[in-house]
Amino acid sequence: MVDVVFLGFGNVNSHLVKAMSKANTVVIKQIFNRNAIQQNSVIENIPFTDDISKVAAADIYIIGIPDDAITEFSIALKFQDKLTVHTSGGVALDALSSKNRRGVFYPLQTFSKKHDVNFKAIPICIEAENSKDLALLKQLGNTISNTVVEISSEKRAKLHLAAVFVNNFTNHLYEIGNEILNEDDVSFELLKPLIIETASKIEKLSPEEAQTGPAKRNDSKTIEKHLHLLGDSKNRNFYELFTEALKQKYGKKL
Amino acid sequence: MVDVVFLGFGNVNSHLVKAMSKANTVVIKQIFNRNAIQQNSVIENIPFTDDISKVAAADIYIIGIPDDAITEFSIALKFQDKLTVHTSGGVALDALSSKNRRGVFYPLQTFSKKHDVNFKAIPICIEAENSKDLALLKQLGNTISNTVVEISSEKRAKLHLAAVFVNNFTNHLYEIGNEILNEDDVSFELLKPLIIETASKIEKLSPEEAQTGPAKRNDSKTIEKHLHLLGDSKNRNFYELFTEALKQKYGKKL
Repeated sequence: MVDVVFLGFGNVNSHLVKAMSKANTVVIKQIFNRNAIQQNSVIENIPFTDDISKVAAADIYIIGIPDDAITEFSIALKFQDKLTVHTSGGVALDALSSKNRRGVFYPLQTFSKKHDVNFKAIPICIEAENSKDLALLKQLGNTISNTVVEISSEKRAKLHLAAVFVNNFTNHLYEIGNEILNEDDVSFELLKPLIIETASKIEKLSPEEAQTGPAKRNDSKTIEKHLHLLGDSKNRNFYELFTEALKQKYGKKL
Repeated sequence: MVDVVFLGFGNVNSHLVKAMSKANTVVIKQIFNRNAIQQNSVIENIPFTDDISKVAAADIYIIGIPDDAITEFSIALKFQDKLTVHTSGGVALDALSSKNRRGVFYPLQTFSKKHDVNFKAIPICIEAENSKDLALLKQLGNTISNTVVEISSEKRAKLHLAAVFVNNFTNHLYEIGNEILNEDDVSFELLKPLIIETASKIEKLSPEEAQTGPAKRNDSKTIEKHLHLLGDSKNRNFYELFTEALKQKYGKKL
Protein backbone atom coordinates (compact mmCIF):
# COMPACT_ATOMS: atom_id res chain seq x y z
CA MET A 1 0.00 0.00 0.00
CA VAL A 2 1.20 3.49 -0.83
CA ASP A 3 -0.32 6.49 0.92
CA VAL A 4 -0.47 9.58 -1.24
CA VAL A 5 -1.42 13.20 -0.67
CA PHE A 6 -2.08 15.50 -3.61
CA LEU A 7 -0.95 19.09 -3.23
CA GLY A 8 -2.76 21.18 -5.80
CA PHE A 9 -5.62 20.05 -8.00
CA GLY A 10 -4.97 21.34 -11.50
CA ASN A 11 -5.13 19.39 -14.73
CA VAL A 12 -2.35 16.87 -14.03
CA ASN A 13 -3.24 16.13 -10.42
CA SER A 14 -6.93 15.77 -11.13
CA HIS A 15 -6.16 13.20 -13.83
CA LEU A 16 -3.72 11.42 -11.48
CA VAL A 17 -6.32 11.32 -8.71
CA LYS A 18 -8.82 9.82 -11.09
CA ALA A 19 -6.37 7.14 -12.23
CA MET A 20 -5.00 6.31 -8.77
CA SER A 21 -8.43 6.19 -7.17
CA LYS A 22 -8.97 3.03 -9.24
CA ALA A 23 -5.72 1.42 -8.09
CA ASN A 24 -6.13 -1.13 -5.26
CA THR A 25 -2.70 -0.51 -3.78
CA VAL A 26 -2.90 3.26 -3.49
CA VAL A 27 -4.67 5.18 -0.74
CA ILE A 28 -5.33 8.81 -1.52
CA LYS A 29 -5.19 10.22 2.00
CA GLN A 30 -6.04 13.79 1.13
CA ILE A 31 -6.23 16.51 -1.47
CA PHE A 32 -4.91 19.94 -0.57
CA ASN A 33 -5.83 22.92 -2.70
CA ARG A 34 -5.70 26.62 -1.92
CA ASN A 35 -9.21 27.05 -3.23
CA ALA A 36 -12.23 24.82 -2.87
CA ILE A 37 -12.49 22.22 -5.62
CA GLN A 38 -15.49 21.12 -7.57
CA GLN A 39 -17.02 17.93 -6.18
CA ASN A 40 -17.48 14.89 -8.35
CA SER A 41 -17.98 11.15 -7.82
CA VAL A 42 -14.23 10.43 -7.98
CA ILE A 43 -13.24 12.68 -5.11
CA GLU A 44 -16.36 12.69 -2.94
CA ASN A 45 -14.81 10.23 -0.45
CA ILE A 46 -11.33 11.79 -0.38
CA PRO A 47 -10.59 14.17 2.50
CA PHE A 48 -9.95 17.71 1.37
CA THR A 49 -8.16 20.64 3.00
CA ASP A 50 -7.31 24.17 1.96
CA ASP A 51 -5.12 24.64 5.04
CA ILE A 52 -1.46 23.89 4.33
CA SER A 53 -0.81 23.34 8.05
CA LYS A 54 -3.31 20.47 8.09
CA VAL A 55 -1.78 18.30 5.40
CA ALA A 56 -2.13 14.59 6.29
CA ALA A 57 0.73 12.11 6.71
CA ALA A 58 1.63 10.12 3.58
CA ASP A 59 4.41 8.18 1.85
CA ILE A 60 4.43 10.48 -1.17
CA TYR A 61 3.30 14.08 -1.65
CA ILE A 62 2.49 14.90 -5.26
CA ILE A 63 2.80 18.59 -6.04
CA GLY A 64 0.77 19.63 -9.06
CA ILE A 65 0.92 23.41 -9.32
CA PRO A 66 2.23 25.91 -11.92
CA ASP A 67 5.96 25.42 -12.68
CA ASP A 68 7.09 28.77 -11.38
CA ALA A 69 5.33 28.29 -8.04
CA ILE A 70 6.95 24.93 -7.23
CA THR A 71 10.05 26.20 -5.41
CA GLU A 72 8.25 28.66 -3.18
CA PHE A 73 5.49 26.19 -2.40
CA SER A 74 7.95 23.42 -1.47
CA ILE A 75 9.77 25.80 0.88
CA ALA A 76 6.48 26.74 2.55
CA LEU A 77 5.52 23.13 3.35
CA LYS A 78 5.17 22.56 7.11
CA PHE A 79 6.80 19.10 7.20
CA GLN A 80 10.23 17.72 6.36
CA ASP A 81 12.14 14.52 5.43
CA LYS A 82 9.13 13.33 3.45
CA LEU A 83 9.13 12.31 -0.22
CA THR A 84 7.82 15.27 -2.22
CA VAL A 85 7.57 15.05 -5.98
CA HIS A 86 6.49 17.44 -8.67
CA THR A 87 4.80 16.44 -11.92
CA SER A 88 6.41 18.88 -14.32
CA GLY A 89 8.38 18.06 -17.47
CA GLY A 90 10.28 21.29 -17.58
CA VAL A 91 11.34 21.73 -13.95
CA ALA A 92 14.47 20.15 -12.47
CA LEU A 93 14.33 17.98 -9.37
CA ASP A 94 16.38 20.48 -7.38
CA ALA A 95 13.74 23.17 -7.84
CA LEU A 96 12.13 21.47 -4.84
CA SER A 97 13.23 22.49 -1.35
CA SER A 98 15.83 20.09 0.05
CA LYS A 99 14.18 20.06 3.45
CA ASN A 100 12.18 17.13 2.08
CA ARG A 101 13.35 14.14 0.03
CA ARG A 102 12.84 15.11 -3.58
CA GLY A 103 11.55 13.38 -6.66
CA VAL A 104 9.74 13.81 -9.94
CA PHE A 105 6.65 11.98 -11.17
CA TYR A 106 6.07 13.29 -14.69
CA PRO A 107 3.31 11.74 -16.80
CA LEU A 108 4.31 12.48 -20.38
CA GLN A 109 0.93 13.39 -21.78
CA THR A 110 -1.30 16.33 -22.63
CA PHE A 111 -4.19 16.76 -20.24
CA SER A 112 -7.38 18.62 -20.96
CA LYS A 113 -10.19 18.89 -18.47
CA LYS A 114 -12.71 17.70 -20.99
CA HIS A 115 -10.82 14.70 -22.35
CA ASP A 116 -10.17 11.46 -20.48
CA VAL A 117 -6.90 9.66 -21.13
CA ASN A 118 -5.85 6.03 -20.86
CA PHE A 119 -3.11 6.13 -18.25
CA LYS A 120 -1.88 2.61 -18.99
CA ALA A 121 -0.32 3.89 -22.22
CA ILE A 122 1.24 7.02 -20.68
CA PRO A 123 4.95 6.93 -19.87
CA ILE A 124 5.63 8.05 -16.30
CA CYS A 125 9.09 9.62 -16.03
CA ILE A 126 10.42 9.31 -12.50
CA GLU A 127 13.47 10.64 -10.72
CA ALA A 128 14.57 10.53 -7.08
CA GLU A 129 17.63 11.13 -4.93
CA ASN A 130 17.97 7.60 -3.58
CA SER A 131 17.10 4.10 -4.71
CA LYS A 132 14.44 3.55 -2.06
CA ASP A 133 12.46 6.60 -3.13
CA LEU A 134 12.95 5.65 -6.75
CA ALA A 135 11.55 2.19 -6.03
CA LEU A 136 8.56 3.74 -4.29
CA LEU A 137 7.85 6.03 -7.24
CA LYS A 138 8.21 3.07 -9.59
CA GLN A 139 5.72 1.13 -7.50
CA LEU A 140 3.30 4.05 -7.60
CA GLY A 141 3.78 4.56 -11.34
CA ASN A 142 3.13 0.89 -12.05
CA THR A 143 -0.30 1.13 -10.42
CA ILE A 144 -1.50 3.37 -13.25
CA SER A 145 0.86 2.88 -16.21
CA ASN A 146 2.61 0.12 -18.14
CA THR A 147 5.65 2.33 -18.79
CA VAL A 148 7.55 3.79 -15.85
CA VAL A 149 11.06 5.00 -16.70
CA GLU A 150 13.81 6.66 -14.73
CA ILE A 151 14.86 9.88 -16.47
CA SER A 152 17.33 12.48 -15.22
CA SER A 153 16.32 16.14 -14.99
CA GLU A 154 18.57 16.92 -17.98
CA LYS A 155 16.98 14.29 -20.20
CA ARG A 156 13.52 15.17 -18.97
CA ALA A 157 14.09 18.78 -20.06
CA LYS A 158 14.82 17.52 -23.58
CA LEU A 159 11.80 15.26 -23.46
CA HIS A 160 9.64 18.19 -22.45
CA LEU A 161 11.06 20.30 -25.28
CA ALA A 162 10.38 17.50 -27.78
CA ALA A 163 6.87 17.17 -26.33
CA VAL A 164 6.21 20.85 -27.03
CA PHE A 165 7.10 20.24 -30.69
CA VAL A 166 4.98 17.11 -31.18
CA ASN A 167 2.05 18.30 -29.08
CA ASN A 168 1.64 22.11 -28.79
CA PHE A 169 3.15 22.92 -32.18
CA THR A 170 1.39 20.04 -33.92
CA ASN A 171 -1.86 21.25 -32.45
CA HIS A 172 -1.12 24.71 -33.81
CA LEU A 173 -0.75 23.16 -37.27
CA TYR A 174 -4.25 21.76 -36.76
CA GLU A 175 -5.37 25.31 -35.90
CA ILE A 176 -3.85 26.59 -39.13
CA GLY A 177 -5.49 23.79 -41.13
CA ASN A 178 -8.79 24.74 -39.56
CA GLU A 179 -8.24 28.43 -40.39
CA ILE A 180 -7.44 27.68 -44.04
CA LEU A 181 -10.61 25.63 -44.44
CA ASN A 182 -12.80 28.11 -42.58
CA GLU A 183 -11.98 30.79 -45.14
CA ASP A 184 -13.74 28.68 -47.78
CA ASP A 185 -16.40 27.07 -45.59
CA VAL A 186 -14.85 23.64 -45.98
CA SER A 187 -15.44 21.37 -43.00
CA PHE A 188 -12.49 20.61 -40.71
CA GLU A 189 -14.11 17.18 -40.25
CA LEU A 190 -12.63 16.17 -43.61
CA LEU A 191 -9.10 16.54 -42.21
CA LYS A 192 -9.64 14.44 -39.10
CA PRO A 193 -8.97 11.01 -40.64
CA LEU A 194 -5.73 12.40 -42.08
CA ILE A 195 -4.72 13.80 -38.69
CA ILE A 196 -5.36 10.45 -37.01
CA GLU A 197 -3.52 8.52 -39.72
CA THR A 198 -0.52 10.88 -39.59
CA ALA A 199 -0.14 10.08 -35.91
CA SER A 200 -0.90 6.36 -36.27
CA LYS A 201 1.77 5.86 -38.92
CA ILE A 202 4.38 6.74 -36.30
CA GLU A 203 3.61 3.57 -34.40
CA LYS A 204 5.01 1.51 -37.27
CA LEU A 205 7.15 3.84 -39.38
CA SER A 206 9.91 6.24 -38.41
CA PRO A 207 9.02 9.91 -39.09
CA GLU A 208 11.45 9.79 -42.04
CA GLU A 209 9.74 6.74 -43.55
CA ALA A 210 6.33 8.34 -43.02
CA GLN A 211 7.18 11.66 -44.68
CA THR A 212 5.47 12.50 -47.99
CA GLY A 213 4.30 15.63 -49.80
CA PRO A 214 5.33 18.40 -52.19
CA ALA A 215 8.24 19.73 -50.13
CA LYS A 216 9.86 16.31 -49.73
CA ARG A 217 9.71 15.64 -53.46
CA ASN A 218 10.60 19.27 -54.23
CA ASP A 219 7.43 19.70 -56.30
CA SER A 220 7.95 23.38 -57.05
CA LYS A 221 4.72 23.77 -59.03
CA THR A 222 2.56 22.69 -56.08
CA ILE A 223 4.66 24.72 -53.66
CA GLU A 224 4.11 27.81 -55.82
CA LYS A 225 0.37 27.18 -55.92
CA HIS A 226 0.28 26.87 -52.16
CA LEU A 227 2.26 30.07 -51.63
CA HIS A 228 -0.15 31.83 -53.98
CA LEU A 229 -3.13 30.54 -51.95
CA LEU A 230 -1.49 31.66 -48.70
CA GLY A 231 -0.86 35.17 -50.04
CA ASP A 232 0.78 37.25 -47.37
CA SER A 233 -1.07 35.62 -44.47
CA LYS A 234 0.91 34.88 -41.31
CA ASN A 235 0.70 31.19 -42.12
CA ARG A 236 2.96 31.75 -45.10
CA ASN A 237 5.97 31.97 -42.74
CA PHE A 238 5.21 28.49 -41.46
CA TYR A 239 4.82 27.12 -44.97
CA GLU A 240 8.14 28.58 -46.07
CA LEU A 241 10.07 27.43 -43.02
CA PHE A 242 8.80 23.84 -43.19
CA THR A 243 9.17 23.62 -46.94
CA GLU A 244 12.75 24.85 -46.83
CA ALA A 245 13.64 22.42 -44.03
CA LEU A 246 12.03 19.48 -45.84
CA LYS A 247 13.67 20.34 -49.14
CA GLN A 248 17.05 20.51 -47.42
CA LYS A 249 16.51 17.33 -45.47
CA TYR A 250 15.31 15.17 -48.35
CA GLY A 251 17.04 17.00 -51.18
CA LYS A 252 20.40 15.88 -49.87
CA LYS A 253 19.38 12.26 -50.01
CA LEU A 254 18.53 12.31 -53.71
CA MET B 1 -21.51 -2.76 -61.50
CA VAL B 2 -18.83 -0.20 -62.29
CA ASP B 3 -15.95 -1.13 -64.60
CA VAL B 4 -12.73 0.60 -63.73
CA VAL B 5 -9.29 0.79 -65.36
CA PHE B 6 -6.34 2.09 -63.36
CA LEU B 7 -3.81 4.16 -65.27
CA GLY B 8 -0.58 4.25 -63.28
CA PHE B 9 0.20 2.19 -60.21
CA GLY B 10 1.85 4.49 -57.68
CA ASN B 11 0.97 4.84 -54.01
CA VAL B 12 -2.59 6.12 -54.38
CA ASN B 13 -3.71 3.79 -57.16
CA SER B 14 -2.22 0.71 -55.54
CA HIS B 15 -4.15 1.50 -52.35
CA LEU B 16 -7.32 2.15 -54.39
CA VAL B 17 -6.91 -1.14 -56.26
CA LYS B 18 -6.54 -2.97 -52.97
CA ALA B 19 -9.68 -1.35 -51.55
CA MET B 20 -11.82 -1.70 -54.69
CA SER B 21 -10.77 -5.31 -55.27
CA LYS B 22 -12.79 -6.11 -52.14
CA ALA B 23 -15.89 -4.26 -53.38
CA ASN B 24 -18.57 -6.52 -54.88
CA THR B 25 -19.89 -3.88 -57.24
CA VAL B 26 -16.59 -2.85 -58.85
CA VAL B 27 -14.79 -4.74 -61.62
CA ILE B 28 -11.17 -3.77 -62.07
CA LYS B 29 -10.83 -4.45 -65.78
CA GLN B 30 -7.15 -3.66 -66.08
CA ILE B 31 -4.12 -1.92 -64.66
CA PHE B 32 -1.94 0.07 -67.03
CA ASN B 33 1.54 1.07 -65.97
CA ARG B 34 4.53 2.16 -68.05
CA ASN B 35 6.74 -0.27 -66.20
CA ALA B 36 6.07 -3.76 -64.99
CA ILE B 37 4.54 -3.87 -61.52
CA GLN B 38 5.36 -6.14 -58.65
CA GLN B 39 2.96 -9.08 -58.39
CA ASN B 40 1.02 -9.73 -55.23
CA SER B 41 -2.10 -11.62 -54.23
CA VAL B 42 -4.35 -8.57 -54.70
CA ILE B 43 -3.49 -7.98 -58.35
CA GLU B 44 -2.63 -11.48 -59.57
CA ASN B 45 -6.01 -11.89 -61.29
CA ILE B 46 -6.22 -8.36 -62.73
CA PRO B 47 -5.13 -7.98 -66.38
CA PHE B 48 -2.09 -5.77 -66.79
CA THR B 49 -0.72 -3.81 -69.75
CA ASP B 50 2.21 -1.49 -70.28
CA ASP B 51 0.92 -0.56 -73.73
CA ILE B 52 -1.18 2.62 -73.71
CA SER B 53 -2.81 1.64 -77.00
CA LYS B 54 -4.19 -1.52 -75.40
CA VAL B 55 -6.11 0.03 -72.55
CA ALA B 56 -9.37 -1.87 -71.93
CA ALA B 57 -12.89 -0.39 -72.09
CA ALA B 58 -14.29 0.84 -68.76
CA ASP B 59 -16.80 3.22 -67.16
CA ILE B 60 -14.12 5.12 -65.26
CA TYR B 61 -10.39 5.55 -65.87
CA ILE B 62 -8.48 6.45 -62.73
CA ILE B 63 -5.24 8.27 -63.44
CA GLY B 64 -2.74 7.97 -60.61
CA ILE B 65 0.53 9.50 -61.78
CA PRO B 66 2.70 12.44 -60.65
CA ASP B 67 0.82 15.78 -60.65
CA ASP B 68 2.92 17.43 -63.31
CA ALA B 69 2.50 14.52 -65.75
CA ILE B 70 -1.32 14.48 -65.63
CA THR B 71 -2.00 16.94 -68.47
CA GLU B 72 0.40 15.41 -70.95
CA PHE B 73 -0.70 11.88 -70.10
CA SER B 74 -4.39 12.72 -70.51
CA ILE B 75 -3.68 14.25 -73.94
CA ALA B 76 -1.79 11.12 -75.00
CA LEU B 77 -4.69 8.75 -74.20
CA LYS B 78 -5.90 6.88 -77.29
CA PHE B 79 -9.63 7.06 -76.51
CA GLN B 80 -12.16 9.87 -76.06
CA ASP B 81 -15.55 10.77 -74.51
CA LYS B 82 -14.81 8.48 -71.56
CA LEU B 83 -14.84 9.47 -67.91
CA THR B 84 -11.23 10.08 -66.87
CA VAL B 85 -10.44 11.17 -63.33
CA HIS B 86 -7.24 12.02 -61.52
CA THR B 87 -6.62 11.41 -57.82
CA SER B 88 -4.67 14.52 -56.91
CA GLY B 89 -5.51 17.06 -54.24
CA GLY B 90 -3.54 19.88 -55.76
CA VAL B 91 -4.46 19.63 -59.45
CA ALA B 92 -7.57 21.27 -60.96
CA LEU B 93 -10.09 19.25 -62.93
CA ASP B 94 -9.29 21.16 -66.09
CA ALA B 95 -5.69 19.97 -66.06
CA LEU B 96 -7.14 16.89 -67.75
CA SER B 97 -7.56 16.93 -71.53
CA SER B 98 -11.11 17.86 -72.57
CA LYS B 99 -11.19 15.15 -75.19
CA ASN B 100 -12.54 12.91 -72.44
CA ARG B 101 -15.16 13.66 -69.78
CA ARG B 102 -13.27 14.86 -66.75
CA GLY B 103 -13.47 14.28 -63.06
CA VAL B 104 -11.54 14.07 -59.80
CA PHE B 105 -11.48 11.21 -57.29
CA TYR B 106 -9.26 12.44 -54.47
CA PRO B 107 -8.91 10.28 -51.36
CA LEU B 108 -7.86 12.72 -48.62
CA GLN B 109 -5.27 10.61 -46.89
CA THR B 110 -1.52 9.99 -46.67
CA PHE B 111 -0.44 6.77 -48.30
CA SER B 112 2.75 4.89 -47.58
CA LYS B 113 3.63 1.63 -49.29
CA LYS B 114 4.28 -0.04 -45.98
CA HIS B 115 1.18 1.08 -44.11
CA ASP B 116 -2.36 -0.16 -44.79
CA VAL B 117 -5.21 2.27 -44.31
CA ASN B 118 -8.87 1.86 -43.48
CA PHE B 119 -10.60 3.33 -46.51
CA LYS B 120 -14.01 3.43 -44.86
CA ALA B 121 -12.84 6.41 -42.80
CA ILE B 122 -11.17 8.27 -45.67
CA PRO B 123 -13.08 11.17 -47.24
CA ILE B 124 -13.24 10.83 -51.02
CA CYS B 125 -13.48 14.27 -52.65
CA ILE B 126 -15.16 14.05 -56.03
CA GLU B 127 -15.75 16.47 -58.85
CA ALA B 128 -17.19 16.07 -62.35
CA GLU B 129 -18.51 18.15 -65.23
CA ASN B 130 -22.02 16.74 -65.26
CA SER B 131 -24.41 15.21 -62.77
CA LYS B 132 -24.33 11.74 -64.34
CA ASP B 133 -20.57 11.46 -64.01
CA LEU B 134 -20.78 12.88 -60.50
CA ALA B 135 -23.33 10.22 -59.56
CA LEU B 136 -21.06 7.53 -61.01
CA LEU B 137 -18.09 8.77 -58.98
CA LYS B 138 -20.26 8.93 -55.89
CA GLN B 139 -21.34 5.34 -56.49
CA LEU B 140 -17.71 4.28 -56.89
CA GLY B 141 -16.60 6.23 -53.81
CA ASN B 142 -19.33 4.66 -51.70
CA THR B 143 -17.97 1.20 -52.43
CA ILE B 144 -14.86 1.96 -50.40
CA SER B 145 -15.64 4.91 -48.13
CA ASN B 146 -18.35 6.17 -45.79
CA THR B 147 -17.62 9.80 -46.71
CA VAL B 148 -17.90 10.87 -50.34
CA VAL B 149 -18.19 14.63 -50.82
CA GLU B 150 -18.42 16.87 -53.85
CA ILE B 151 -15.70 19.52 -53.68
CA SER B 152 -14.82 22.10 -56.34
CA SER B 153 -11.25 22.39 -57.64
CA GLU B 154 -10.85 25.69 -55.76
CA LYS B 155 -11.93 24.23 -52.44
CA ARG B 156 -9.92 21.08 -53.03
CA ALA B 157 -6.80 23.21 -53.50
CA LYS B 158 -7.40 24.70 -50.05
CA LEU B 159 -8.05 21.27 -48.62
CA HIS B 160 -4.79 20.04 -50.08
CA LEU B 161 -2.94 23.02 -48.62
CA ALA B 162 -4.46 22.39 -45.20
CA ALA B 163 -3.55 18.70 -45.56
CA VAL B 164 0.09 19.65 -46.10
CA PHE B 165 0.02 21.54 -42.80
CA VAL B 166 -1.63 18.81 -40.72
CA ASN B 167 0.21 15.92 -42.36
CA ASN B 168 3.61 16.77 -43.90
CA PHE B 169 4.44 19.57 -41.49
CA THR B 170 3.14 17.70 -38.46
CA ASN B 171 5.26 14.75 -39.47
CA HIS B 172 8.26 17.08 -39.65
CA LEU B 173 7.56 18.13 -36.07
CA TYR B 174 7.77 14.42 -35.20
CA GLU B 175 11.12 14.35 -37.00
CA ILE B 176 12.33 17.28 -34.92
CA GLY B 177 11.12 15.63 -31.71
CA ASN B 178 13.02 12.52 -32.70
CA GLU B 179 16.17 14.57 -33.40
CA ILE B 180 16.01 16.33 -30.05
CA LEU B 181 15.73 13.02 -28.19
CA ASN B 182 18.42 11.29 -30.26
CA GLU B 183 20.97 13.85 -29.12
CA ASP B 184 20.54 12.56 -25.57
CA ASP B 185 19.80 8.91 -26.34
CA VAL B 186 16.24 9.22 -25.10
CA SER B 187 13.83 6.84 -26.82
CA PHE B 188 11.33 8.31 -29.29
CA GLU B 189 8.96 5.57 -28.10
CA LEU B 190 8.23 7.72 -25.05
CA LEU B 191 6.67 10.40 -27.27
CA LYS B 192 4.36 8.08 -29.18
CA PRO B 193 1.46 8.05 -26.70
CA LEU B 194 1.57 11.87 -26.66
CA ILE B 195 1.53 11.98 -30.47
CA ILE B 196 -1.47 9.66 -30.60
CA GLU B 197 -3.32 11.59 -27.90
CA THR B 198 -2.63 14.96 -29.57
CA ALA B 199 -4.35 13.67 -32.69
CA SER B 200 -7.15 11.86 -30.84
CA LYS B 201 -8.14 14.96 -28.90
CA ILE B 202 -9.15 16.58 -32.19
CA GLU B 203 -12.02 14.14 -32.57
CA LYS B 204 -13.74 15.68 -29.57
CA LEU B 205 -12.17 19.10 -29.01
CA SER B 206 -11.53 21.97 -31.40
CA PRO B 207 -7.80 22.70 -31.91
CA GLU B 208 -8.29 25.82 -29.78
CA GLU B 209 -9.83 23.86 -26.91
CA ALA B 210 -7.05 21.27 -27.16
CA GLN B 211 -4.15 23.73 -27.07
CA THR B 212 -1.89 23.74 -23.99
CA GLY B 213 1.75 24.47 -23.24
CA PRO B 214 4.24 27.16 -22.32
CA ALA B 215 3.63 29.40 -25.35
CA LYS B 216 -0.14 29.48 -24.84
CA ARG B 217 0.23 30.46 -21.19
CA ASN B 218 3.15 32.76 -22.02
CA ASP B 219 5.41 30.93 -19.55
CA SER B 220 8.54 32.91 -20.34
CA LYS B 221 10.77 30.96 -17.95
CA THR B 222 10.08 27.65 -19.71
CA ILE B 223 10.36 29.29 -23.12
CA GLU B 224 13.79 30.66 -22.16
CA LYS B 225 14.92 27.24 -20.97
CA HIS B 226 13.81 25.69 -24.24
CA LEU B 227 15.59 28.31 -26.32
CA HIS B 228 18.71 27.67 -24.29
CA LEU B 229 18.44 23.92 -24.95
CA LEU B 230 17.94 24.54 -28.67
CA GLY B 231 21.00 26.78 -28.88
CA ASP B 232 21.46 27.95 -32.44
CA SER B 233 20.15 24.74 -34.03
CA LYS B 234 17.90 25.05 -37.08
CA ASN B 235 15.00 23.89 -34.95
CA ARG B 236 15.20 27.13 -33.00
CA ASN B 237 13.51 28.95 -35.90
CA PHE B 238 10.52 26.63 -35.62
CA TYR B 239 10.34 27.11 -31.87
CA GLU B 240 10.40 30.88 -32.18
CA LEU B 241 7.83 31.04 -34.97
CA PHE B 242 5.33 28.76 -33.21
CA THR B 243 5.85 30.38 -29.83
CA GLU B 244 5.33 33.86 -31.23
CA ALA B 245 2.15 32.78 -33.07
CA LEU B 246 0.74 31.04 -30.01
CA LYS B 247 1.55 33.96 -27.72
CA GLN B 248 -0.21 36.31 -30.12
CA LYS B 249 -3.19 34.03 -30.60
CA TYR B 250 -3.85 33.32 -26.95
CA GLY B 251 -2.35 36.47 -25.47
CA LYS B 252 -5.10 38.54 -27.03
CA LYS B 253 -7.77 36.46 -25.38
CA LEU B 254 -6.47 37.03 -21.83
